[in-house]
Amino acid sequence: MSDPRPIGVFDSGVGGLTVAAALMDRLPNESIRYLGDTARLPYGTKSPTTVQRYTEKNVGFLIDREVKAVIVACNTASALALDGFHADVPVWGVIEPGADAAIAVTRGRVGVIATESTIAAGAYRTALSRRRPELDIHSQACGLFVPLVEEGWQDDEITETVARRYLAPLLDADIDTLVLGCTHYPVLIPVLSRIVGSDVRLVDSAASTAEAVAEGLRANQLEAPSDHRPEHHFFATDTAERFARIASTVCRRPITLEHVDV
Amino acid sequence: MSDPRPIGVFDSGVGGLTVAAALMDRLPNESIRYLGDTARLPYGTKSPTTVQRYTEKNVGFLIDREVKAVIVACNTASALALDGFHADVPVWGVIEPGADAAIAVTRGRVGVIATESTIAAGAYRTALSRRRPELDIHSQACGLFVPLVEEGWQDDEITETVARRYLAPLLDADIDTLVLGCTHYPVLIPVLSRIVGSDVRLVDSAASTAEAVAEGLRANQLEAPSDHRPEHHFFATDTAERFARIASTVCRRPITLEHVDV
Repeated sequence: MSDPRPIGVFDSGVGGLTVAAALMDRLPNESIRYLGDTARLPYGTKSPTTVQRYTEKNVGFLIDREVKAVIVACNTASALALDGFHADVPVWGVIEPGADAAIAVTRGRVGVIATESTIAAGAYRTALSRRRPELDIHSQACGLFVPLVEEGWQDDEITETVARRYLAPLLDADIDTLVLGCTHYPVLIPVLSRIVGSDVRLVDSAASTAEAVAEGLRANQLEAPSDHRPEHHFFATDTAERFARIASTVCRRPITLEHVDV
Repeated sequence: MSDPRPIGVFDSGVGGLTVAAALMDRLPNESIRYLGDTARLPYGTKSPTTVQRYTEKNVGFLIDREVKAVIVACNTASALALDGFHADVPVWGVIEPGADAAIAVTRGRVGVIATESTIAAGAYRTALSRRRPELDIHSQACGLFVPLVEEGWQDDEITETVARRYLAPLLDADIDTLVLGCTHYPVLIPVLSRIVGSDVRLVDSAASTAEAVAEGLRANQLEAPSDHRPEHHFFATDTAERFARIASTVCRRPITLEHVDV
């Protein structure tokens, strides 16, 4: 049993491309349809109702492109919209794989940084506690990290000052592991590492999500044939030269981008 | 001739409430329908095509509420979407009144700060140059100001550091007037004043927009009857306790807020 149809991936913008790149590395035969909902980003400050509506539209758009499964590569949408979500294909988020990655390395004290809406939803806290109830978990919303990255100030003294303020309570709590609960945050790793020091492990969900997707495809008999030549297509809801440039860099191959209204 | 129908006002979020409050002060008989497009904010990083689509939807929503005119109380939408815009009622933006306010006070060297998209569109430069071609105009996009205000850090040392970086080229150019080309920026006046000093005049468009609307209603015989008791209604596209609270404060009266899908 095999299935040559593509995997759908969406994020509010470019952040989920790190997940798409991990999927391409882990599952080189699989085709990908990536949707960046750049016209409505950011999701991280918006209400559950609104994020749920956008998630339904985005999943519907990908299902219309005949995908066999959808990866919600946005932490906020995974946190706010997947509980009880119904679709005609499997829909997988990034929170559970991220929690798995943290559990694999922590010695008991975990910090979670994410958008306001992800923290308010408590999704990582729930996923981590379910796996290990005695964990000591400290959460911090970091509302300015995405705008700072978008401004291109990812390795900048202002960003470092902002990060020191956000991370102070987590360092006071003596965390040993820090979950990067937003797909934008891996580009901040140089700054974050300087602040938390080499004893704190930084965890993001891209690689563990790719691993979970590989297992999910196998379990559902949805893997592409082993001789399948993949084709990737990228869509964005805002016009997006910048998006195309970043996507080519993150995915380490030229990409074609199509502007769509979802 | 008089017309009791309400005036429509929209912004991407809460910023335009300063314009709504100025309208209530200047035109106390006029009813207002205010739409905050909070589900799709911010507009300031998005493309002209997308901002035009949102503007059309928002104006259409307000026209369905039987308004007699629409005020686009968002600088980005005014800059990107009003050129050649067609609607069944007059549609007025905030750029032209803002330019009038700057011309009234400048001695010849004007700085303009606004979102990326407003600066890229060059709307203030065009409006100012048309009024006084010999003006020396210096523009600066300030992408982090809106997120800093949203974070609640409007009077904060980090915000001051960010503002010093953005404003340095304008101060080097020895501006005498600074146009606040985004309706979020008036809350940053304490920080901005400390940086530019008392010799630089800060100009925002709320009061001059209200004056222009008063003239426009008179010229089009659309003024409400002098004994008209106004009623104001507020709509937001994201669910919005925070919005309702801010709206009550800015407009200095209790407001009712309705959640709508536009």
